[in-house]
Amino acid sequence: MAEKIRVGILGYGNLGKGVECALKQNTDMELVAVFTRRNPEDLKILTQGVPVYNVSDAVAHKDEIDVMILCGGSATDLPKQTPEYVQYFNVIDSFDTHAKIPEHFANVDAAAKASGKVGIISCGWDPGMFSLNRVYASAILPQGKDYTFWGKGVSQGHSDAIRRIEGVLDARQYTIPVDAALDKVRSGANPELTTREKHTRECFVVAEEGADLARIEKEIVTMPNYFADYDTTVNFISMEELKANHSGIPHGGFVIRTGKTGWDEEYNNVIEYSLKLDSNPAFTASVLVAYARAAYRMAAAGQSGCKTVFDVAPAQLCMASGEELRAHML
Amino acid sequence: MAEKIRVGILGYGNLGKGVECALKQNTDMELVAVFTRRNPEDLKILTQGVPVYNVSDAVAHKDEIDVMILCGGSATDLPKQTPEYVQYFNVIDSFDTHAKIPEHFANVDAAAKASGKVGIISCGWDPGMFSLNRVYASAILPQGKDYTFWGKGVSQGHSDAIRRIEGVLDARQYTIPVDAALDKVRSGANPELTTREKHTRECFVVAEEGADLARIEKEIVTMPNYFADYDTTVNFISMEELKANHSGIPHGGFVIRTGKTGWDEEYNNVIEYSLKLDSNPAFTASVLVAYARAAYRMAAAGQSGCKTVFDVAPAQLCMASGEELRAHML
Repeated sequence: MAEKIRVGILGYGNLGKGVECALKQNTDMELVAVFTRRNPEDLKILTQGVPVYNVSDAVAHKDEIDVMILCGGSATDLPKQTPEYVQYFNVIDSFDTHAKIPEHFANVDAAAKASGKVGIISCGWDPGMFSLNRVYASAILPQGKDYTFWGKGVSQGHSDAIRRIEGVLDARQYTIPVDAALDKVRSGANPELTTREKHTRECFVVAEEGADLARIEKEIVTMPNYFADYDTTVNFISMEELKANHSGIPHGGFVIRTGKTGWDEEYNNVIEYSLKLDSNPAFTASVLVAYARAAYRMAAAGQSGCKTVFDVAPAQLCMASGEELRAHML
Repeated sequence: MAEKIRVGILGYGNLGKGVECALKQNTDMELVAVFTRRNPEDLKILTQGVPVYNVSDAVAHKDEIDVMILCGGSATDLPKQTPEYVQYFNVIDSFDTHAKIPEHFANVDAAAKASGKVGIISCGWDPGMFSLNRVYASAILPQGKDYTFWGKGVSQGHSDAIRRIEGVLDARQYTIPVDAALDKVRSGANPELTTREKHTRECFVVAEEGADLARIEKEIVTMPNYFADYDTTVNFISMEELKANHSGIPHGGFVIRTGKTGWDEEYNNVIEYSLKLDSNPAFTASVLVAYARAAYRMAAAGQSGCKTVFDVAPAQLCMASGEELRAHML
């Protein structure tokens, strides 16, 4: 039996817990430590016998960890953490602020090249698996057009925006792709779709007793950036109903590329990739763990620097050997 | 303007012609020669000003060609051609006899390592894009199950089998996935599906005048390996109707993995990839051309040996730079 890949988790929210669960399914890897900003004694994790440390102790454990999976948020945690920890560890993150990826890449790349470590950023499903599918499809069909649809799924950002409205106790917002738009894309018609045509937004809101529901609804549907450009429906429900029917974090979506082949571009082609996920963070975590295996192998092969999913050969993600993959999966 | 990647085509059937069409869409590549077993003077190609040579002259042009795309068949051409030509060229093939891939890989790898060239085998969509999707999905969801469905599309092998029956002038066979089976898979029920439950076969047959149609139909539906294990329908049509409505070579299919995440595997996930192609050879050719770019780059970076789609990082397939990909596709 080969030595297992020793993994650390930094940050133990939904994503960190998802990584812990995913590691249980990957028998060539083992969780060796969890690092938290909380008091370690207050944190109960699921895996028996694995120590929890304060994040300030992370660097002291650098020789015990092959890959550190960073499970912080993209807004303030990862822009600092990923360049910092790649000085000491091979790292993986799920940085998902698309517009800031080039800057984040440059920061992580400089630190990783200096330390000789590998840092794979923006792993997950968008960015991540969806990005991969955009790249593969556009490489194969240069004459074509990409479409990405999200949902049906819970948007944490939009749910939070509703919660900040006066009189709202709790809320859950679902992003829903419009079937007619999906069908139009699949037809190969190459439609130009507005924001409103692509997705609708459905809100489940628990209001304080006696709150002005009409005002809350109006504040939601007219909220700039978040809702004003969409057809939004608002449903007021009880806290019990919210907890019973809307406590999950499902998500998913579609990446579709339609494109032409043939001398006169006479043939239509549709490439479609879709995800339907009961738990968004658990799936994102599963992607992180597969890329942690790749980071370990790429570092072991002498590579260093910042990488993205575009730079990782698919075989690097797999437990099985190249020989097994060719015999059974090709 | 950087130098273009100089590509040769060896074999000018449907697939070779598809490669020629795909090259037209890839502005960083140029077709420099076509090699044929026919008399070169009898072969008219689509691209103006590109020479056609007899295949026996191929090696003499080795310094003018960066990548040779081998467009022969898997039964007898490629097992010989790919190990032979990788002695002189970086090569790409679409070898699709799944059971013989390990043997083909070993032969190509030995020759490619000796010559210092790169040979990428089994590019296309199955093997190829479907294989990639099986590998990515199983790496992310180790606790799950893969399903591959083919169609709706024309099976050349099954059409040929019908044509060999006495009294048959021409025939076209469509492989069709069963919707109920697809839905059952997508539900996450992890069904065990029989051959009959997954696909049906629909045949359009032109019979000789006065032929015994009942006998032909019986010979088709009871034919071992090809039809006996399927629900098969046979339609007798005129040659005119066959030419008018069944002259295309469409194909496609679905790769679906359902798998579990969560500490107690409490979350379901569905990853689905599908293709809908007006022309099977034109799309396969487009995949070959994208991997030709990768072969050129991998060889330029000093790599050699046999590779498959599992060994090629996605960024290698793209015209755009890593920087552009990260800014716009991630």
